[in-house]
Formats: sequence, structure tokens, C-alpha cells
Amino acid sequence: MSATVDLHTIHTYQFPTRIRFGSGARTELPHVLSSLGIQRPLVVTDRDVAQLPWFASIMELLADFNPAVFSQIWGNPVVSQVESGLAVWRRHAADGIVAIGGGAPVDVAKAIALMVNHPGHLFEYEDGNPNARPINQPIPPIVAIPTTAGTGSEVGRSAVISDDQTHEKKIVFDPKLLPCVVLADPDLTLGLPSKITAATGMDALTHLVEAYLAKGFHPICDGIALEGISLVAQHLVDCVQFAQRLAAGGTLSDREIDAHLLARSGMLNASMMGAIAFQKGLGVTHSCAHALSTVCDLHHGLANGVMLAAAMRFNLPTSPDRFLRMARLVNLQATDGQAFIDWIETLRDTVAIPATLTKLGIPKDTIDRLVEVALRDGCHLLNPRPVSRSDFYAIFQDAFGS
Amino acid sequence: MSATVDLHTIHTYQFPTRIRFGSGARTELPHVLSSLGIQRPLVVTDRDVAQLPWFASIMELLADFNPAVFSQIWGNPVVSQVESGLAVWRRHAADGIVAIGGGAPVDVAKAIALMVNHPGHLFEYEDGNPNARPINQPIPPIVAIPTTAGTGSEVGRSAVISDDQTHEKKIVFDPKLLPCVVLADPDLTLGLPSKITAATGMDALTHLVEAYLAKGFHPICDGIALEGISLVAQHLVDCVQFAQRLAAGGTLSDREIDAHLLARSGMLNASMMGAIAFQKGLGVTHSCAHALSTVCDLHHGLANGVMLAAAMRFNLPTSPDRFLRMARLVNLQATDGQAFIDWIETLRDTVAIPATLTKLGIPKDTIDRLVEVALRDGCHLLNPRPVSRSDFYAIFQDAFGS
Repeated sequence: MSATVDLHTIHTYQFPTRIRFGSGARTELPHVLSSLGIQRPLVVTDRDVAQLPWFASIMELLADFNPAVFSQIWGNPVVSQVESGLAVWRRHAADGIVAIGGGAPVDVAKAIALMVNHPGHLFEYEDGNPNARPINQPIPPIVAIPTTAGTGSEVGRSAVISDDQTHEKKIVFDPKLLPCVVLADPDLTLGLPSKITAATGMDALTHLVEAYLAKGFHPICDGIALEGISLVAQHLVDCVQFAQRLAAGGTLSDREIDAHLLARSGMLNASMMGAIAFQKGLGVTHSCAHALSTVCDLHHGLANGVMLAAAMRFNLPTSPDRFLRMARLVNLQATDGQAFIDWIETLRDTVAIPATLTKLGIPKDTIDRLVEVALRDGCHLLNPRPVSRSDFYAIFQDAFGS
Repeated sequence: MSATVDLHTIHTYQFPTRIRFGSGARTELPHVLSSLGIQRPLVVTDRDVAQLPWFASIMELLADFNPAVFSQIWGNPVVSQVESGLAVWRRHAADGIVAIGGGAPVDVAKAIALMVNHPGHLFEYEDGNPNARPINQPIPPIVAIPTTAGTGSEVGRSAVISDDQTHEKKIVFDPKLLPCVVLADPDLTLGLPSKITAATGMDALTHLVEAYLAKGFHPICDGIALEGISLVAQHLVDCVQFAQRLAAGGTLSDREIDAHLLARSGMLNASMMGAIAFQKGLGVTHSCAHALSTVCDLHHGLANGVMLAAAMRFNLPTSPDRFLRMARLVNLQATDGQAFIDWIETLRDTVAIPATLTKLGIPKDTIDRLVEVALRDGCHLLNPRPVSRSDFYAIFQDAFGS
């Protein structure tokens, strides 16, 4: 809290989701559905998760219910997936949703829930559109079971869905889209491949850092964000390295199995803390990442991971005190905020996220479109330093590595 | 998060209160009441607050409503106050409560709300009593406007009410007792006398420290607690010193008026963060403080402020890493956890809280009763170090200064 805070504004603080966190939390699903009065759940998940052995075991938990499954979700989620899921909801006459997966299925589940009682096209409800139709009808209950530690969409109030043709990301937002219960079970993240672990982990870190730096006065979110950054510093490298060892056919000792669960538990918490904290706001990294998803269909977490250091170099002069606090969280000896950016770069390299957009194979001639889409994106409006068109050029040029 | 965390337990995280924080937030009261459908509010406040000029201005805000006022509350709240307030509720045919004040009126408001639709005696609903009657009837809505920065009861789920005769504190607890909206307006704390500022501020600090140290795995609460401790370190001394200057007839420059508001804003947030964080648990300091209120009718915040250092000396060996983190928050050069206890003692002396129970005038021959009551209190069950009868003797002896 600095003396530059506007003390004459009234701020809203609210954290309503009920989270049950811990190894085995998924087994509470039948109890949770019963307590919500759900008898015909629509299980929304993605194509890959639907093939995993533990997915079948969750379906077995639903033996006393009448579930349907919609799993036609892959990549950055698009409107047609929402429409297909809604059709399954109606055919099944479902009365609630169980969303299982990373950000994509959870966001699709929220959008399906919205459209159950709201007519027209999803994008007619776009957040921030002055002509948007009102979200004023009942929204069926959602129970979320996250399976990645990144997006934190399970504790968020928005769904990010892309246009099928243009790939442009649109956001629908309403507090009623919040899942009413989250079963956060780190067991489900133990098998995540190292690349997904790294990209989603950098996504969580980006949420935490941008929330802490965002304009606005919200010490509760600040505290959650700082502790989340500390968890990422403690646990992300371990998660990635265990995933690499398991992928190479390695086996873990009992002690290492516990260490792996500890690291996954830390990251699953960090990811939820990121999404809780970013009710305060996000920033310029997200506007760049949204542009990279729209223009190049890049994975959101990967885009954040590649952009974060360049975006933070842009922000450092505006928030030196906050960078210093973050630096001291990850490096006791830090004497200035630059040390935090150095730490981000080392972490990025250690978890094998490419250092530049060029190394990712993004053609440099996309930069004009990237800048246009990023400028239109709303996230940078809460960035601590205002971002002009030429600033976006400079940040993307930095991220291209030239 | 340490490797000693039990990763095979499922934990609950939830932060539901809607908080509107900022200078002037009180003026939103009519809008909030309308949005909740409240037309005949019962305003519950304490004897002293009811005499303050700004209390009259809040009542003026209610011109379009039909309010009644119950203000027969003073000291540690007792059952007879709850019963009197309930009688006013019934006579007025009220449909909601506005609680204005520190912990006492907010707790009485919760207890009145509970008893509106629950028959019998308040203590039949005591938390943790295996024979307690169920809290299963509707509870009317509460809007809370805190006027001290200490208890944080406005964001808590419990009410602490004492027996009129024995002074024993009993706790009723239910998530439905949470106020649905908090209007947290730091303006209302600008006139707090220095002694109340100091005692309530030490109460907030005790909540934050005990929540951070409490058993259980809750990194969200940990982050909120740590940031709250940082706010106390930044702002409590300023609040007390401004209060002392104002009491001595001093005037403040415009710049100092802003600095005062900043400090009060920091402490008002710290106090809410303490009460949000202690859903994780409290500890041995609170069991001692509850005993001091029961046996000696001591102010709860003052009791915590006098006990905190002795209780933390008892806890330090069990949680050296957590003490070191707290020490580094308040003193960058700290190299061990003892530095945090040193800081507590310096802060306590600076804000003029007596250093020992003896200096407070508590007779040493109360120690047997203090130990008995503290042992029966539930708070120490989540203390990081188990507390035996002889431990309580040692802690109280330390706090007596011998």
C-alpha cells in the first residue's frame, strides 16, 4: 500500500467459491451433487481428459446419477463447441454441470450454463459491450474439477471463448458463472506432461504477477498474489522435473512421490490464487497473449510464458517498489526489482519455455496484427503503466528477440 | 508450505463476504438495503457510537426507510443484551439488521439474527457442543459497518457472547451469520482514541499472526495473513500517534490528513484480513485472552496485545521458518524468528500497551482460574504447538512478568 493509492474510491472485495482442496477431493463429487440437488449432470471435459483412466473412475463415482458426457473440446475453445455442448444439455435434460479439465472445458461449461436460459448468440453477452444483452436469467450450477494448474478458471467469473473463424477471443463475465463448488484434487495433475505443466505454470505466475501489479487498491488480492508467487518459486521447477523423469520412464521413490504431490499441491493452489487475485485486474502481458492466441492460435499459457519477461521490463520503471517485493520473495539477496525479471527468465529457461517468439516459430511479419489485437484487448487498461501503440510494438519486438 | 503439511487431508477454502471498502462507503447503505429488500432495519450499535455525530448522519441516510435503533451494548457483550435487542426486533417487526460498531455490536447483531427464528436460549446453539440445537432456520440479512480496526467480526462467521453471571465467553458459529455486505469506511475510524486504536490494532495483529501459524494447510489464508502483518507494521504506529496528537488538541496539515486516512485504511484492511485469515484457525494467545476476559473482564484486544509476545515465545521453537518469514516482513535484516518477537514487543511498547499483566493490575492469584478457563477454550487446539496445563502456567507466568 503506497501513498499513491486513491483513498477516495470505493473498492469491492469478494471471494465466494467454496473450494475443497486435497488429495482425493474428487471422491466428494457424489456428495456435492446431492447437496446441490443435481440428478442429471452434464459432464463437460476435453477430448484428451475423456481418455484418461481416472476420468473413467470419476464416471464410476456417478453410478447413482444419470450423467451425460460432452467431450468435444480441444485447443482454444470456440463458439461451435459451446453450441454442441448446449445441444447435449438439452437432449439430456440436464440439471447441472460437472466441468473437468483445464481452462478450456471449464470455460465451455460456463458458456453452456449461460446459454441454457439466455437466448441469442453467445457473443451478444460479451463483457464490456455497451449493447450486450443482460445476463439476468437463472444459470444452472457448475461443479468444477481442475486438472491443470494454470488458468484457475474454476474460481473465476469469466469464460474466454474464441470466434470459430476469426479466432478472436471474447470474454463473457458474470459472478453467477462462478462454479459453486471446486473439488481441487492434486492427484489429477500428477500425470500432466512437462510441457503442459510448464506452460500452465507460467500462466498461473503471469496471473499472480499481473494481479499484484494491477491498478487498484486490494490488499487481500495483493497478499494472495504474493503468496502464490512464493508457491510458484518453490514448486514449479519440481513439477516440471518430476514430469520429465516420469516421461523418460523413471520411477519415483516413496519420498519422491510425496515430494511430487507436495509440488503439485503447491502449484494447484498457486493457480487458484492467481485467478482469485486477478479479480483486481490483469495487465499488458495478457493483452499480448490474447493477441497471440487470436493471430497465431498459440496456447494461452505458453503465450504468457514467452511474453512475461518483456512485459515486465516495460512495467518495472512504474512499479519499482512492487518489483522489489516480488524480487525478495524469490531471492532474499535481491536489492532491486530487476532481480525479479532475471528470476522470471531463469525460471522460463529452466522449465523449457522458449525465450522468444522467434524461437516459437511466430513469423515477425505478424507484428502489425498482434499490436492491433492487443490494443483492442481490455486487460492492459488496468496495467500499472499505460500502454500505447508504440509501446506494444516495442514490447513485441523485445519478445521477438530483436 | 512445508514438507510437514498433511497432503492427504481435504481442506475447505471460502471467502464469501461482499466488502465495499473506501472513504465514504457508508453512504452506500440505502442502496445496499434496497438491493437486499430491507425496509425496516434494526440498527444495532453500542452506547458510545450512538452518541457520535456521524452516527446521526448515518441515520439521516435512512430517511426513506423505517429504522429502529438498539444501542444498549457496552463492554464484552452478554446474553441479556442479545435478549433486549431481540425484543426490539420483534416490537419493530424488523426485516434486517444494520450493525454499526466494533466487535461487540456486530456480535450482538449476529446473535439477535440467529435468535429471530431459533427457539430457546442462545447458548443452546454453542459451537462445538455435541448436544447443540441445529442452526437450520432462516437468518435475516445483516449489513455491517465496522468502526474499529481490530476484531474483523464483520467478515467472520461467529459471535462471541458472554454469560451475564459467569462472564464465560461462548461462541456461536454458522456461515449464515456472516453479514452479506460490509461497508468498510475508514472515515469512521479517524476519531478512534489512541487506547482503542492500540488495543484493537493489537487484536488484528494477533488474528493475523495466529492464523498464519495455525495448524492446517491454507496458503490463501497464509498470504492474506502475511500481507495483513505487513499492513500493521506500516500503519499501526501512525494511527496511534495521529490519535494522540488529535487528543492533545493538535491539528493536522492536509498532507497529514491524507497520511492519517492512509494509515486508518491500512489498519481497517488489516483487521478484515485477520478475520478472513483466521477461518484457518487461531491459537494459544486467544485461549489466554478469552480467559482474561472471562476471569477479569479484560478488553479482548488489550488481552491479546499483552499476551502475544509471551505466547509467541512459546510457539517459536515449533515454527522457526514461519517466524523467520514474519520477521523478514517487518525487518529486512532479520536472520531468525526471535526478531519477530522483538518487533512485537517494540510495537506493543510504542503503542503504549502494558508490557505485563502485572502492569495491567491483574492480580497474580488469578492464575489458577486463568489456566482452567484457557485450557477449556477451543482456540489452542489449532495452535502449532500443543499446550498443556503446565504450558499455560508458564505462558501466564511469562505474561505476568515473573
